[in-house]
Amino acid sequence: MNTIGEKFSFTSFGESHGRAIGGVLDGVPAGLKIDMEMIRQALDRRAGRIAEGMRREAGVSPRALREADEVEWLSGVMDGVTLGTPIAFIIRNKDARSEDYDWLKYTYRIGHADRVYQEKYGIRDHRGGGRASARETASRVVAGAIAQQMLQEQNIRIHARLVQVGEERNPEKFDSYITGIQREGDSVGGIVECTITGMPIGIGEPIFDKLQSHLAFAMMSINACKGFEYGSGFQGIGMKGSEMYFSDNQQLISGGIAGGISDGTPIVFRCVFKPTASSQKTFEAIRQEAKGEKKNGRHDACVAVRAVAVVEAMTALVLTDFGMIFEQKCHE
Amino acid sequence: MNTIGEKFSFTSFGESHGRAIGGVLDGVPAGLKIDMEMIRQALDRRAGRIAEGMRREAGVSPRALREADEVEWLSGVMDGVTLGTPIAFIIRNKDARSEDYDWLKYTYRIGHADRVYQEKYGIRDHRGGGRASARETASRVVAGAIAQQMLQEQNIRIHARLVQVGEERNPEKFDSYITGIQREGDSVGGIVECTITGMPIGIGEPIFDKLQSHLAFAMMSINACKGFEYGSGFQGIGMKGSEMYFSDNQQLISGGIAGGISDGTPIVFRCVFKPTASSQKTFEAIRQEAKGEKKNGRHDACVAVRAVAVVEAMTALVLTDFGMIFEQKCHE
Amino acid sequence: MNTIGEKFSFTSFGESHGRAIGGVLDGVPAGLKIDMEMIRQALDRRAGRIAEGMRREAGVSPRALREADEVEWLSGVMDGVTLGTPIAFIIRNKDARSEDYDWLKYTYRIGHADRVYQEKYGIRDHRGGGRASARETASRVVAGAIAQQMLQEQNIRIHARLVQVGEERNPEKFDSYITGIQREGDSVGGIVECTITGMPIGIGEPIFDKLQSHLAFAMMSINACKGFEYGSGFQGIGMKGSEMYFSDNQQLISGGIAGGISDGTPIVFRCVFKPTASSQKTFEAIRQEAKGEKKNGRHDACVAVRAVAVVEAMTALVLTDFGMIFEQKCHE
Amino acid sequence: MNTIGEKFSFTSFGESHGRAIGGVLDGVPAGLKIDMEMIRQALDRRAGRIAEGMRREAGVSPRALREADEVEWLSGVMDGVTLGTPIAFIIRNKDARSEDYDWLKYTYRIGHADRVYQEKYGIRDHRGGGRASARETASRVVAGAIAQQMLQEQNIRIHARLVQVGEERNPEKFDSYITGIQREGDSVGGIVECTITGMPIGIGEPIFDKLQSHLAFAMMSINACKGFEYGSGFQGIGMKGSEMYFSDNQQLISGGIAGGISDGTPIVFRCVFKPTASSQKTFEAIRQEAKGEKKNGRHDACVAVRAVAVVEAMTALVLTDFGMIFEQKCHE
Repeated sequence: MNTIGEKFSFTSFGESHGRAIGGVLDGVPAGLKIDMEMIRQALDRRAGRIAEGMRREAGVSPRALREADEVEWLSGVMDGVTLGTPIAFIIRNKDARSEDYDWLKYTYRIGHADRVYQEKYGIRDHRGGGRASARETASRVVAGAIAQQMLQEQNIRIHARLVQVGEERNPEKFDSYITGIQREGDSVGGIVECTITGMPIGIGEPIFDKLQSHLAFAMMSINACKGFEYGSGFQGIGMKGSEMYFSDNQQLISGGIAGGISDGTPIVFRCVFKPTASSQKTFEAIRQEAKGEKKNGRHDACVAVRAVAVVEAMTALVLTDFGMIFEQKCHE
Repeated sequence: MNTIGEKFSFTSFGESHGRAIGGVLDGVPAGLKIDMEMIRQALDRRAGRIAEGMRREAGVSPRALREADEVEWLSGVMDGVTLGTPIAFIIRNKDARSEDYDWLKYTYRIGHADRVYQEKYGIRDHRGGGRASARETASRVVAGAIAQQMLQEQNIRIHARLVQVGEERNPEKFDSYITGIQREGDSVGGIVECTITGMPIGIGEPIFDKLQSHLAFAMMSINACKGFEYGSGFQGIGMKGSEMYFSDNQQLISGGIAGGISDGTPIVFRCVFKPTASSQKTFEAIRQEAKGEKKNGRHDACVAVRAVAVVEAMTALVLTDFGMIFEQKCHE
Repeated sequence: MNTIGEKFSFTSFGESHGRAIGGVLDGVPAGLKIDMEMIRQALDRRAGRIAEGMRREAGVSPRALREADEVEWLSGVMDGVTLGTPIAFIIRNKDARSEDYDWLKYTYRIGHADRVYQEKYGIRDHRGGGRASARETASRVVAGAIAQQMLQEQNIRIHARLVQVGEERNPEKFDSYITGIQREGDSVGGIVECTITGMPIGIGEPIFDKLQSHLAFAMMSINACKGFEYGSGFQGIGMKGSEMYFSDNQQLISGGIAGGISDGTPIVFRCVFKPTASSQKTFEAIRQEAKGEKKNGRHDACVAVRAVAVVEAMTALVLTDFGMIFEQKCHE
Repeated sequence: MNTIGEKFSFTSFGESHGRAIGGVLDGVPAGLKIDMEMIRQALDRRAGRIAEGMRREAGVSPRALREADEVEWLSGVMDGVTLGTPIAFIIRNKDARSEDYDWLKYTYRIGHADRVYQEKYGIRDHRGGGRASARETASRVVAGAIAQQMLQEQNIRIHARLVQVGEERNPEKFDSYITGIQREGDSVGGIVECTITGMPIGIGEPIFDKLQSHLAFAMMSINACKGFEYGSGFQGIGMKGSEMYFSDNQQLISGGIAGGISDGTPIVFRCVFKPTASSQKTFEAIRQEAKGEKKNGRHDACVAVRAVAVVEAMTALVLTDFGMIFEQKCHE
């Protein structure tokens, strides 16, 4: 339930406003020197922890900056080198301020999982959304960064980027567009595109363990993700077979996967993220209904901005679980 | 690799032009009276086995009609009632005519997995695409129909239908549109929408076993499926949070799932299927290149037509694996 | 539930007196030429299908000889060579004679699982014990023989043999001892010892996927098996540490496994099998109670004789699932 | 690799002399009030943390007493009540004193996994045996105690006890026997018997998920365990079928399991533990060979004493994973 992967598995734990969030990564070979700086950068991208000017423009809330995200390594690493044993780590929740959420104890937020949690479990850690909070994805980013390092040693590179914000498709206009949405106290969705290069041919299984199945599974587990497509995807719905298979851009159409198996060309897929329901406008509406005092800070105008780092992390976890590392070693 | 599900698992086997295709369904409780007619109808829908007039209009190839799809039950069933032991069944490949495919022995078809199979396995059953053939989905339909019966006893209904063919969104015009494409020897993609009603609240897990993750995983495993979305999906990219969360149609936006867990309202998701690469036009091109003799029969102008039955089957397998059946029994 | 293994998995199906028993073996690499004669011999050993004189002496029932055990390959094999796709096979139950078991419909046999099946499933295929019958192990032997072939290519050999029958430990006296038990209409237990040679160092995982854990899991799944031990086992209970660790025979004590991981020396483990409850004496008692007519034929005086082939098969399935094959290839 | 269980899973992490050991328990329902005192007692039993007089007599080393084993709860629990989210906990390694183990850096200990670790991983945390240390079992005991609480609510009780120490079978003489062995600087093996009462009928699956298979798997994962038997086991090798099935004590013979499924009577199984290789005698021999200075403290004369708590814990984890809790709730 909180574990993904079999040969290379990641278990996530922690409530966003409990003592800590963290994870256990099992299957990392011994002897890997962990690049701590790479982990730090991935966490910063997820947290939107960037220069203040950029932050404001990018529609990232100041709350993100408050999160220190310091990783404490509990096991599996000695002097920065992996031991081959499970790597457990935690990120303490220093700045919980759970009293901010007291008024939520008796309220279900629109567009959140509050109600289903209450129904399913009969109990709910209402503070900060508990487990459903996007804060949980910080653990995924740590684990994914280690997986990415393993992949890089095989010359496999994962690169995700924002390609659409609302209806805006010109990256040069994203900042001003998001700033506008932010000022309105509103929120907007976005599309993240991810490219994997350096993939060997033959990764994926023909029937139920297709590469695209595992990628879709992992991406749909990211908060606010409402869709996944690869290659021609939904976008290609207007193309006929005669256009598709005789176009000059075969790779764009196949997305780098044939019959569930990587074909050796770059893999390209896209995920769509909905506008957050935590925008000022929705919060205000809930607050008024609940007669609560307004305390809630600003939230992200476009969560897809921060999702980029999570998309990369989850992609890395999927690929390492396919045992690419070990199989690759064979071919050397 | 060829198994999906844990508590309720389905294992698929068989090459499209080998002796038989089939499957093993494990986890069906004892005492279920199997509705053989329901299985027959599902198989007929998948095979496009419909009245000749409808067939021609729907762009279903006559080859589909030749497939008898007779299910032979090997185990798990006694006098039509399940025993609680694994249900194994086969569908023999009566009309293989594998000589039709001899010229493919030395050819990789565009848009097919022929090449990656050869690279991955170093051997390939070239006859009819071997394992990658859509024929394998007949086994899924048998298994899915049994799962659907179990769900119906809980008043959970799964209904999939074609909602878009190429750029055509008016169902009344699908037949003539596909017939036109067929006449051109071309192919076209389509979108299948699936609705699940009667879902209890609370099915799905918060982090990695989200309901949408499992649905996406299963749908992406269907041949030619290039994308999955639920609720607002890619379609909703233009909506701001203020529009989305205060619209009158909350359910359409959420898609019946919140935080990975069913919220008790109908679940709605969509899958996009690419145009088949087996259309006359692409085959002709390959044939000329391979200097082979033209033997190949007509293929489907729109595989999404036949995918409808497979979408329902895979949905049923996902839901039963969530153990809904057993949990439901508890609440009675 | 009816599947063992993850990377290399085997799914078993079929009731002993239904249409067929069989299995699906997933994970066999493409290009393996299957040694059908080796499978035949393994099946013969399991069935006690040996020369009549030997048969009588060995306490194997004539019923065993009636079983033809002809394997029909449904998928995954073309011209005797594996395709890399799942291998499905069946063995039809030709000589079912299920009427022999009619009187059992209303009787639970002592020492059998009849009653728990009825309680658990509410339905039961009483014919020949249904799923609980030892006949199901024929499917395991087919799958195990293929796994053994894969291992032999790595120079890993599995050899099991009977080392104790009742209290008799001298192999030269087993035949006459069993014949005597057979004449009395009684049954007796036995101990099978299995040795694996050619094992590379490093197979097994330190905590929960210890090599001995998987071997024990697999052996305990064999009908009538009541215990598993490796190395010093229960036998070594009288030895002090000072004797054990300074004896000349370290290997015998360790059993070839240290900390859950193969240490490169031969692996030695033992399984104990209880006397069958299907002996003439117990059947007679049940029959009288049920006022049934005596119809039942003779049963094995010592099931451990036939279990030898099953122990080898299950051992092979465990080792191949540890991915030894693939890892080995790396080191070449 | 470091996870056991599927529906109810436990992941263990931590090196014995790293920062902390710990675990993640997934699948505990929300709303369970954790009995912290019960966990404390289980940890004390595992640590041999008992009155000094008893300690000396029982052959428990003083080192055991130094271990504080204080559990820090990281997630899944709020105000002592479970949230339904994964429960993560750690036990910090306060008293590591890893310098005691410096001389081991270049030595492989007899009867330990030191050498296979080095060969398998190419790196090894030599301090205190790293992952192979029995200290790891403290995490299992914490997890198992929570599982046991869940079982107790269903009136299922697990009770393990030492029934044999070396060749001594009289419990009244265990203390003096172990004290004698301790004085000799030697070590001795033992047999732990575990009884499960209150088991409902029907737990376990007929073929590969037999109840005894899972129990054997779990027990064989405990350090120093060399064998598992249930019911008549190896002990019953001398009994003929006529004696076994007509004895007055059917239950003792069946061990409470028929055909892999609980039969509603008490389940009884036994595990054998070898003498530890860490006794003074073996250490002394290694030390002399390595020309190291003698620093190592006393070790347990009979590890089976402390294994009792671990046997109970692992049994509880197996049973809860069989979903007994949830199925039970259905029948109410």
